[in-house]
Amino acid sequence: MNYNTLKKEAKVVIVGGGFGGLYTAKGLKNSPLQVTLIDKRNFNLFQPLLYQVATGSLSPADITSPLRSILCQNKNTQVLLNAVIDIKPNDKQIIVDNHQSIPYDVLILATGVTHHYFGNDQWETFAPGLSNIEDALEIRNRVFMAFEAAEKENNPIKRQAWLTFVIVGGGPTGVELAGAIAEIANNSMKGNFRNFDPKDAKILLIEGLERVLPPYPIELSSKAEQELCNLGVTIHTKSIVTNISEDTIVVRKGEKHEQITSHTILWAAGVKASSISKILAERTGVSLDRAGRVIVEPDLSITNFPDIFVIGDLSNFSHQDNKALPGVAPVAIQQAKYVAKLIRKRLKGESLPSFIYKDYGSMAIIGQNKAVADFKFIKLSGFLAWFIWISAHIYYLIEFDNKLVVLVQWIWNYFTQGRGARLITENNKKDK
Amino acid sequence: MNYNTLKKEAKVVIVGGGFGGLYTAKGLKNSPLQVTLIDKRNFNLFQPLLYQVATGSLSPADITSPLRSILCQNKNTQVLLNAVIDIKPNDKQIIVDNHQSIPYDVLILATGVTHHYFGNDQWETFAPGLSNIEDALEIRNRVFMAFEAAEKENNPIKRQAWLTFVIVGGGPTGVELAGAIAEIANNSMKGNFRNFDPKDAKILLIEGLERVLPPYPIELSSKAEQELCNLGVTIHTKSIVTNISEDTIVVRKGEKHEQITSHTILWAAGVKASSISKILAERTGVSLDRAGRVIVEPDLSITNFPDIFVIGDLSNFSHQDNKALPGVAPVAIQQAKYVAKLIRKRLKGESLPSFIYKDYGSMAIIGQNKAVADFKFIKLSGFLAWFIWISAHIYYLIEFDNKLVVLVQWIWNYFTQGRGARLITENNKKDK
Repeated sequence: MNYNTLKKEAKVVIVGGGFGGLYTAKGLKNSPLQVTLIDKRNFNLFQPLLYQVATGSLSPADITSPLRSILCQNKNTQVLLNAVIDIKPNDKQIIVDNHQSIPYDVLILATGVTHHYFGNDQWETFAPGLSNIEDALEIRNRVFMAFEAAEKENNPIKRQAWLTFVIVGGGPTGVELAGAIAEIANNSMKGNFRNFDPKDAKILLIEGLERVLPPYPIELSSKAEQELCNLGVTIHTKSIVTNISEDTIVVRKGEKHEQITSHTILWAAGVKASSISKILAERTGVSLDRAGRVIVEPDLSITNFPDIFVIGDLSNFSHQDNKALPGVAPVAIQQAKYVAKLIRKRLKGESLPSFIYKDYGSMAIIGQNKAVADFKFIKLSGFLAWFIWISAHIYYLIEFDNKLVVLVQWIWNYFTQGRGARLITENNKKDK
Repeated sequence: MNYNTLKKEAKVVIVGGGFGGLYTAKGLKNSPLQVTLIDKRNFNLFQPLLYQVATGSLSPADITSPLRSILCQNKNTQVLLNAVIDIKPNDKQIIVDNHQSIPYDVLILATGVTHHYFGNDQWETFAPGLSNIEDALEIRNRVFMAFEAAEKENNPIKRQAWLTFVIVGGGPTGVELAGAIAEIANNSMKGNFRNFDPKDAKILLIEGLERVLPPYPIELSSKAEQELCNLGVTIHTKSIVTNISEDTIVVRKGEKHEQITSHTILWAAGVKASSISKILAERTGVSLDRAGRVIVEPDLSITNFPDIFVIGDLSNFSHQDNKALPGVAPVAIQQAKYVAKLIRKRLKGESLPSFIYKDYGSMAIIGQNKAVADFKFIKLSGFLAWFIWISAHIYYLIEFDNKLVVLVQWIWNYFTQGRGARLITENNKKDK
């Protein structure tokens, strides 16, 4: 392995203020290094709860924390609000959007992923994905606007098109969205309309493989399907989307093509690396996987450039069990802590053994009192899994940024089935 | 006075889901009338706290409540999400944006006001006003983005332009914005930047008349000016804005013109009636005041049309003390209750004496522990006024929609000086 001794006051540049970037900066606190964290946004986003913003349970501020206040005590760290437009690995510089160049001795890239239409980018207008706060607000607007449009529509066939919700992709995000929309229809909207019963809403979940939550153990997939069915969600497995237009989605199952009329189609079917990975590949020759993620070395650096690290969802680390680690927060956090430790070692001219991911299990939420959890040594579903899911998230949020408010909001929502954050905001500010 | 007996099951159409419209609908609950409430938005906005969204203390959902859930128990009321584009008083119909016509027996207009540039609409781009949720998010983005830009700017003169905040208008909204931005600079942003001290921010409040809070007693204006000064706000009274461009505002004070360089200019200097008042005037011949508000009769109906009522900020009621009632929530609520009562009387063929506004006083907040309150029999300022202000608002929010979360958020903010809702969201969703 190739490593070099870092001088004191070396410049560490971190791109991305997600879990990977933030935990790297935190891990370098009180070191003699000069750290710069660059992000296009001024906040960290708690991605696991993004679907709760998209479905009106939480507000954007509930699941975001200002980067500056998180890093306020890191006196050696400056936060810059910029987008990175180029990397010059031989000059050890990155170029940001105002064409300023920022020198580095160590560079950490942690810009994550966005959603992906597999070559059908024209579908995005009709079927938005869920990667950031604006996506979540767009989805929130569409879901609640659909119920409003249904109330105004007197033609029953047209009304049913407004009350049909199609979610493409049966991974955790798709399952969470389908479950939450079913609960909106069954509970939150009860008695809210005069022209229809919100329970008449049809929620369809489309998955290409043979079961929902494909990476989970088969018994948890079955549990999830059962609980979604109980909520009134119709699941189509082994079903491939062949076309999406303004109000129609075409699904192929075996030889059969089915056309579904719906005004609210949501995309949760795939991710690709953020665009920085392509730039990195061009400048360094590093290999990318099919989703554009950067193939990293056992120490999370890239081939021939021991001073450039790629961590979190943006990286493909396949040195453990010969398959890429999943794109989840625990991976990003453990990788960040590893890289920070490695950099500190290099200050002393020392090294570290390869990165090893410690997998504590995974969870997906389906609805109130309903979740599945795979803790390796035990598999759980139902209320207990839900309770562990919500406790873990509350614990994390409170530890991270003292978001007590979210706890109160959740307790409130639990007892009232309320969706207080269901405001439709859109771009109609001018026509008051 | 001209009034007529209403038949049972008469159609009551309310336009506007603010305090006026909502309290009218609530006042008609359990009546035999068929009530339709029409609004362009799906929520009621608690306008008195809008500046707290604009300055990152609260989230939009904290100060909004879904109209449908508020009116869920009003079985005789339907909510429609529409904009009204025309009124046909002789056919007793209104026309909504999908060109559907909706018949009424009684029409209540309560669409409120928006901000106003007195013939200089081109200033809006450079100096946004604060009328709705989108305005508040736009102002929030600009304020927090200015600090971010200052961190990236190495030229001290250019940096000062980012750290200069100009608020035009010394009424309650202007005072609240100036005070809140001063607290952001002095407290919330402490230690957040590496290139400047946020305390170096300059906050200017521009007022055309000779004191801030002109409608308040002179001693409360003085108190407010003193407390703003203590926060570091510079007040320019008797100062008229003569021009606003992208980064410059020109202010005339007597003979002197001063040019101020600032990237963050906010407008809080005037309001005008929503556009429906013009349509109403054309169709009914009713008189409007200079701000476009509808001059109403002593029973809040309009001349020659006893079945059309105009209430809240949209109306000009001058039958008490010969001056128009102020555009505040208590006026709208009392007028709504009056109209609902009058309509119920008409069901029985009875009438009501003229509307009389009961004024319990007014309050304006300047910052933490700082407010002024004029309760007629007693004038208060400082901590006590602040405590009454915040208690009244918490009481109201909890009574209205059980927004316990806001209470927790406020207690939290009080002790931490935090601005958790300072996320900058803008229109950059595509360039991930």
